[in-house]
Amino acid sequence: MTDFLTHCRSVVGDAFVLDAPADMAPFLTDWRGRFTGKALAVLRPATVEQVAALVRACAQWRVPLVPQGGNTGLVLGSVPDAGGGAVVLSLARLNAIRQVDPINRTMTVDAGCILQQVQEAAAAEGCLFPLSLAAEGSCTIGGNLSTNAGGTAVLRYGNTRELCLGLEVVTPQGEIWSGLRGLRKDNTGYDLRDLFIGAEGTLGIITGAVLKLYPQPKASITALAALPSPTHALQLLNLMQDHCGSSLTGFELMSQYCLNLVAQQFPSLPKPFAAQHPQYVLMELSSSESEQHAVGLLENAIGAALDRDIVSDAVVAASVAQSAGLWQLREHIPLAQAKAGKNIKHDISLPVSRIADFIAATGPLLEAAFPGCQLVCFGHLGDGNLHYNVAPPDGISNEDFLRNQDKVNRVVHDSVVGFGGSISAEHGIGALKRDELAHYKSPVELNMMRAIKAALDPLGIMNPGKVL
Amino acid sequence: MTDFLTHCRSVVGDAFVLDAPADMAPFLTDWRGRFTGKALAVLRPATVEQVAALVRACAQWRVPLVPQGGNTGLVLGSVPDAGGGAVVLSLARLNAIRQVDPINRTMTVDAGCILQQVQEAAAAEGCLFPLSLAAEGSCTIGGNLSTNAGGTAVLRYGNTRELCLGLEVVTPQGEIWSGLRGLRKDNTGYDLRDLFIGAEGTLGIITGAVLKLYPQPKASITALAALPSPTHALQLLNLMQDHCGSSLTGFELMSQYCLNLVAQQFPSLPKPFAAQHPQYVLMELSSSESEQHAVGLLENAIGAALDRDIVSDAVVAASVAQSAGLWQLREHIPLAQAKAGKNIKHDISLPVSRIADFIAATGPLLEAAFPGCQLVCFGHLGDGNLHYNVAPPDGISNEDFLRNQDKVNRVVHDSVVGFGGSISAEHGIGALKRDELAHYKSPVELNMMRAIKAALDPLGIMNPGKVL
Repeated sequence: MTDFLTHCRSVVGDAFVLDAPADMAPFLTDWRGRFTGKALAVLRPATVEQVAALVRACAQWRVPLVPQGGNTGLVLGSVPDAGGGAVVLSLARLNAIRQVDPINRTMTVDAGCILQQVQEAAAAEGCLFPLSLAAEGSCTIGGNLSTNAGGTAVLRYGNTRELCLGLEVVTPQGEIWSGLRGLRKDNTGYDLRDLFIGAEGTLGIITGAVLKLYPQPKASITALAALPSPTHALQLLNLMQDHCGSSLTGFELMSQYCLNLVAQQFPSLPKPFAAQHPQYVLMELSSSESEQHAVGLLENAIGAALDRDIVSDAVVAASVAQSAGLWQLREHIPLAQAKAGKNIKHDISLPVSRIADFIAATGPLLEAAFPGCQLVCFGHLGDGNLHYNVAPPDGISNEDFLRNQDKVNRVVHDSVVGFGGSISAEHGIGALKRDELAHYKSPVELNMMRAIKAALDPLGIMNPGKVL
Repeated sequence: MTDFLTHCRSVVGDAFVLDAPADMAPFLTDWRGRFTGKALAVLRPATVEQVAALVRACAQWRVPLVPQGGNTGLVLGSVPDAGGGAVVLSLARLNAIRQVDPINRTMTVDAGCILQQVQEAAAAEGCLFPLSLAAEGSCTIGGNLSTNAGGTAVLRYGNTRELCLGLEVVTPQGEIWSGLRGLRKDNTGYDLRDLFIGAEGTLGIITGAVLKLYPQPKASITALAALPSPTHALQLLNLMQDHCGSSLTGFELMSQYCLNLVAQQFPSLPKPFAAQHPQYVLMELSSSESEQHAVGLLENAIGAALDRDIVSDAVVAASVAQSAGLWQLREHIPLAQAKAGKNIKHDISLPVSRIADFIAATGPLLEAAFPGCQLVCFGHLGDGNLHYNVAPPDGISNEDFLRNQDKVNRVVHDSVVGFGGSISAEHGIGALKRDELAHYKSPVELNMMRAIKAALDPLGIMNPGKVL
């Protein structure tokens, strides 16, 4: 391996091949701090050509490699395993905005650009790059693409997959595929772009991308509605979409338990309603016309929902600050959970029409198996995506309860699959859910995935142990 | 082959294995009547299980198969070659709407459903399935998916790819992959769905799909603008998108030459402007609110465009009949071309920002090579998609001019690729553009496509001679 590392140093320079334990440490532990892997070295190329040269070296010396962006993933997809034979290949130094084309409404970026940097570069040209998620200050667009990240704007703009027109990829053979097309329509052969998106670095390394931009909305307005049940939330979603079409840009469900948790842990945050209600929906409306238009549209729709008893109560934010306050309630749910102690998390999706039935059916199953357990259920209802987290009963420690993780997963995931849902909505598979994937996917589907993996990466050096 | 056909008859019944020339004829000639292939038989299964059994038989006897939907393709993708050794596998009898879920805004359909049938089933539930194209009365949704069809609503709703959430596919081994998921978010492994979409039946046979539905707009309104140049059309596009956001659902460019051709061939159609203008744009606006809202939005935006001298003149349709009349002008361009005689067609796309430069650069190249040739240039400008057709100079017969097809293609496609465009925007590759694909794609990309083809279809029985 000395020869291999010497060769890597000749490619990127001594300073960018890290092998001292202290230097490597930040690259080896996952975002949630649950696992620390080992690596031969951390490689930090600065150009696509350097990435390609390093991959050729990995192929020649049969060294497995783990591509890494901002290392904010939630499924152990971007850290190496405990074996110590792999290298981490960090894309962080490929961080240039290559081009913004406001007429084509596209931008071409390096994979290592931070998401927030991409958002800001779009805004500087009067455009919107709509991908938005909690880690946006540190995650990279390459990681967003490799995990097909979701976030809070999927209802209107789609997942990261829908926001990408073209890719540049270094193949497992160390060749560069220049697929940086800025085209809305292109039917010339197989859709390689979408194969690399969401493949979590197991088929190749995304080094650049052409992203879709949108006109900046003229105004956004937020409201919080209180409702008797998840069924009412579904009725509200349909009513809002009928009234507002694609102006409805956010629709987030939160249970009373979630907001109580936030109120306990962050007492200074707003408390919009005096009374308690079983469920709440945070809605965001964006208008390409004016604030007046957005407010009128939102108030009309909420009025119709109140008339039909779909909604029990509602507040419409009267200012940007009030809007931000309502969003803070939503964004503080995971933080409040973290302060309250560890719990068992699920990132699931369902057909939107089955969500109320899923919630009604799964709670009793968990209660029967784990009496007194607490459900922290919230998420992007408009996309069918729930963060369905299970916290310990009163009097049981988090550590004791976490020993039930596999059993809790089985109850929740069996129910999800029974309702036609997915065990990973927006976080991916990584190493964490690899066994769950194998458990739930059909042999036909697994065999096709394995055939593609073997065809594109016959040496098996690309992020081994992840996904498949 | 007698054993093979006997086996096929045992699977689907004697009546559904056609081998008499007269019975097979409608399945062997392409839509435009340019090519007639030969086949061993035409197989007409009625169920997914029958499709799978037939594919297993093809694999066992090594009989190549050509999947076929409505046989309306434009690139010779759904007819067999002249060898006579293949079978056509028609999906037309799999034509059930399996389920409509208006709350999830999805419908599950058999691949052989006619597109219009799908649109009508959605409308019956108060929903919109937005895919719309000229052949919608006879093309099937399976063919739309296999070619990733485009059409007139791509600007707002995307290509067929963006309208599909899940697939059911019979693999080249005759297994059934049940990927009929109705999920907006699902990150569980490789994106097999998008690999089969657009693969033109070379990787497997799409037998069913889950399609996305949208709320029906409350009103649509159409306008025709006259402009000095394609550059002005791009300025208008950006202005309209800034003013109207996603309410802008159509944006079609037509040159003066196109409208003159329509006026000559169809003199009864409306003539909206007294004066002649170099370019015209047909715009459609849809509102989720009201007709009044749509009209106000459109008139404001056109007013701004007139103020800035982007637009020379404009008419807004005052009724549904007037809207239909304006759309007829656009839809009659290909019909007027056909009446005027054969020409050399190109289905190309470009970055939207490069379209005016492409038009300005490519005309002189063609004029230099083929003096006096006529350009019939129109298309979905909002998607960067032009139908860029070249007709003979006055005094030269269409037949004589068509002998230049390869040379004309080379001039046009070289220019397209030079501007970062695609030689097939929405029609696919089929057998017609296979050599062009090989000419323009990089070896890296071709090799990845070939590796995937070999991995999934190692016997090479799936629609051989198409795409690759």
